[in-house]
Amino acid sequence: MNSFAIGVDLGGTNLRIAAVDTAGKVLEKISTNAQVARGREYILDEMCKSIRALAARFGDTGGLIGIGIGVPGIIDKQRGVVRESPNLPDWRDYPVHDEIMQRLQTDVSLENDANAAALGEKWLGIGGGFDDVCMLTLGTGVGGGIVLKGRIWHGMTGMAGEMGHITVEPRGIRCGCGNWGCLEQYASATAIKRMAVEAIARGEAPELAKAMDQDPEFSAKGVYDFAVQGDEAARRIFHVVGQSLGIALASLINIFNLPMYIIGGGVSHAWDAFSPSMLEQVRQRSFVYAATAPSGTAIDHRRNMADGGGKSTIITRAALGSDAGLLGAARLPMIVSERVSERAR
Amino acid sequence: MNSFAIGVDLGGTNLRIAAVDTAGKVLEKISTNAQVARGREYILDEMCKSIRALAARFGDTGGLIGIGIGVPGIIDKQRGVVRESPNLPDWRDYPVHDEIMQRLQTDVSLENDANAAALGEKWLGIGGGFDDVCMLTLGTGVGGGIVLKGRIWHGMTGMAGEMGHITVEPRGIRCGCGNWGCLEQYASATAIKRMAVEAIARGEAPELAKAMDQDPEFSAKGVYDFAVQGDEAARRIFHVVGQSLGIALASLINIFNLPMYIIGGGVSHAWDAFSPSMLEQVRQRSFVYAATAPSGTAIDHRRNMADGGGKSTIITRAALGSDAGLLGAARLPMIVSERVSERAR
Repeated sequence: MNSFAIGVDLGGTNLRIAAVDTAGKVLEKISTNAQVARGREYILDEMCKSIRALAARFGDTGGLIGIGIGVPGIIDKQRGVVRESPNLPDWRDYPVHDEIMQRLQTDVSLENDANAAALGEKWLGIGGGFDDVCMLTLGTGVGGGIVLKGRIWHGMTGMAGEMGHITVEPRGIRCGCGNWGCLEQYASATAIKRMAVEAIARGEAPELAKAMDQDPEFSAKGVYDFAVQGDEAARRIFHVVGQSLGIALASLINIFNLPMYIIGGGVSHAWDAFSPSMLEQVRQRSFVYAATAPSGTAIDHRRNMADGGGKSTIITRAALGSDAGLLGAARLPMIVSERVSERAR
Repeated sequence: MNSFAIGVDLGGTNLRIAAVDTAGKVLEKISTNAQVARGREYILDEMCKSIRALAARFGDTGGLIGIGIGVPGIIDKQRGVVRESPNLPDWRDYPVHDEIMQRLQTDVSLENDANAAALGEKWLGIGGGFDDVCMLTLGTGVGGGIVLKGRIWHGMTGMAGEMGHITVEPRGIRCGCGNWGCLEQYASATAIKRMAVEAIARGEAPELAKAMDQDPEFSAKGVYDFAVQGDEAARRIFHVVGQSLGIALASLINIFNLPMYIIGGGVSHAWDAFSPSMLEQVRQRSFVYAATAPSGTAIDHRRNMADGGGKSTIITRAALGSDAGLLGAARLPMIVSERVSERAR
């Protein structure tokens, strides 16, 4: 049996934990009911309880390499601290790394959740075989992760990869980050809901208005369902989602010239609703894409990918769904351990 | 005496060549009168003649490491070919590398001119001591070079670093690359001239109109002179230059989180005219910059830089002027040779 690591996905709402072996096989996955809103101490107790249970179950037959935790926020990796997390306000500046290490006596790696997702997709998902990938995760917000030469690009202070805050409309919607017209304001689930409310207020979306009246929980998913059924107002919203993603991706392709750009997160399930507008924008706006666009059919495209991508720029949906961050988190301590062995050689 | 390399700056107008030793000392610099417009064969002859002369002069006392050439265009480094160069149309798809190697029997490295400039500034200019820098060169067009972990980031097909084609106005001016509202359309010398012509046509720039009538060669430099003298129309143009640079830089800082962003090229001489608007935009638009902005005075800023930058994001003018690309070109064969020695160890 391979040795294994434990990945933790500390989401904005729920806590999920998995034991994953070095070959990428999920040994066990625990989707706890632990609500993150119940606070830090409660979550830490639940997390450590589940980790101990998994470590005990698989620890007899193979060694536990370590624990990786994906957190929706800005991580100070040097201090092992969550610097800033809009969804986890009581975790701010808390020494997560030291606390968990003390409780469990095992090495812990903290990572931004979108970075973990990028690593997960590169390891076991659509990015397999590529050393350089850029991922956008479209969820409540828009996160990003950049993997260069097989490693997450953290930047000087661990804040790199904030592609959700690329300006796509210089005089657009004000963003929580202080900027105007960030990608996040047009391509997140929150943005889709907001654009639906705006369209209703302008009297342009009678069907959406009815649906929202009837269902106080009506969300981005509901807007998508209307778009699929051909509702014009809902389709226009996903056209904006696609256009904004296309503007940002075109700039990213001109800057990085990577072989693969991956779109993940909950909103990526609406791929068929937004991707035509997105790809049209990228084709028009990026001459680097135009020079490297995959030619031919979807079959050629897959064949090309199987070849390791040849020399074309692939823009694709993520493959691992909501597990990308969980699997990427489990991969973190494995990378640390591989580096240690490399140095020892 | 140190061994040396020969750098070539094959500009859009002139050819410049320098012998530079491994410590960065310029042994001799030749600014030829060779006009690039006279064609490829003529330029190749002139280039090889000057290289031979420099090699003979310094070759007795120290070894020639190799030759590096900066070219304004997209380079296929694997094939040693200029893929695309708007300013050097007759060099397209020409096997420069093999041709010069054959003529001179010495190793040759080809590089995009903005990449060479970034490398030059990192080696001997303002980027000294930083492993990661991003440079924008504001000239006829807007070029870019990214240095990560000490090496130029080329991307999959050598087309990375095209920061001049970041979208800053999604429905803005059409660019030669096919996009709308590229940074290049607002921050290049060409753009400054165009904005002056537009302001004159709108009747908003009487002084610029007079100057342009009197001087058919009136250019971006002339617009700058008027801005310095307080002419409102000229100042508004440089405000647009600064705003556009600020929008692009804010996105780059959110994406990369590097310690240093360098603004070079001819238009960077107008730093005092555009940098206030640029920095104001960056401060407003990038929360990564806000979290890492250099605090205090210019003296603190320099002290901080002398410390290796600490943890702040520095946005600065280039230091080497038009020599950045020439010196960076000379550095190219030295890097190749260092890598070979590293592998041999």
